[in-house]
Amino acid sequence: MATEPLTAERILEATEEVLRRYGPAKATVVDVARVLGVSHGSVYRHFRTKAALREAVTSRWLSRTETVLAGIMEGEAEPGPEKLRGWLLALFDTKRHKAGDDPELFATFSVLIDESSDVVDAHLTELAHQLTRIVEEGVREGEFVAADPASAAGAVFAATARFHDPAYAPEWRKPTIDAEFTAVCDLLLRGLRA
Amino acid sequence: MATEPLTAERILEATEEVLRRYGPAKATVVDVARVLGVSHGSVYRHFRTKAALREAVTSRWLSRTETVLAGIMEGEAEPGPEKLRGWLLALFDTKRHKAGDDPELFATFSVLIDESSDVVDAHLTELAHQLTRIVEEGVREGEFVAADPASAAGAVFAATARFHDPAYAPEWRKPTIDAEFTAVCDLLLRGLRA
Repeated sequence: MATEPLTAERILEATEEVLRRYGPAKATVVDVARVLGVSHGSVYRHFRTKAALREAVTSRWLSRTETVLAGIMEGEAEPGPEKLRGWLLALFDTKRHKAGDDPELFATFSVLIDESSDVVDAHLTELAHQLTRIVEEGVREGEFVAADPASAAGAVFAATARFHDPAYAPEWRKPTIDAEFTAVCDLLLRGLRA
Repeated sequence: MATEPLTAERILEATEEVLRRYGPAKATVVDVARVLGVSHGSVYRHFRTKAALREAVTSRWLSRTETVLAGIMEGEAEPGPEKLRGWLLALFDTKRHKAGDDPELFATFSVLIDESSDVVDAHLTELAHQLTRIVEEGVREGEFVAADPASAAGAVFAATARFHDPAYAPEWRKPTIDAEFTAVCDLLLRGLRA
């Protein structure tokens, strides 16, 4: 282990592991250093404070969703309505898998998110940007009508909060949730279509 | 005071006042009886348990919103799209006035609501019923298209959660919230229109 160079990425992986194991209240920088077999000073050379480390790990966690969604946004083959639906479904799926597959880590990140409003704002800005690009593209192709694509994208994001806002995570296990998602998507796509 | 008959309605008014004054953790049936100048036995003759009294006062609080909205639903002059928008705006306005004008009472009812899921379910069922009636009427008048009005109404309700779910109450003070509400409403009405 000591032969691998100590990168920021390795520290963030170890931090996520330590957070999963001890929870956000108990996890310390010393725990992270111990997992990596280095001194805590070495960790602090990459992240100057415990808060900076926690912000970076939260940002990394949220950026995984952004990367998946960016792949859909950049796809060229699909027509606008399918792309928009695919993007919304991928957002919902990523969030509910995070919530369902690893509830401890999800609870941990819910705590971290509450303490890192800048990181969350950056995440929401990136998602709004991607959604606006999809709406703009659909308008250019004559598939969507939207006088103000950014405002229409904001309305779509707000109208689907039930399917991405972590506050609704307990509802995501309901057997009717997929039908609800489809009904909301159908209505929004009908509202956007040219 | 002793000359007025002790009605369920008077007990509920006094209970709301006691809850506002002491909060949900400290308010007792004895406090309610004291405010009314009666014995706690007289209160228990109307509401057999403290839980039953708390449920009844929560139900009464929620039913005030239902009454306002039913008035809009039953209005005959308006076309469907305006009626739907008016109903959604009245729902948003009632909730945010409750949250903004009397934050202590709103916080109190948020606690009571968490302990009375049956009362909340009945409230949500009533709202869904009203919204379905408005959609059905619009379909009948040829203003709306909806293969399944109940499902479309459910989608409208879910898509506007940001403007009625108490979990979002902190957002209702944002200066952009009215523009967001209008953008979501415009999109949904465009999605429903024939």
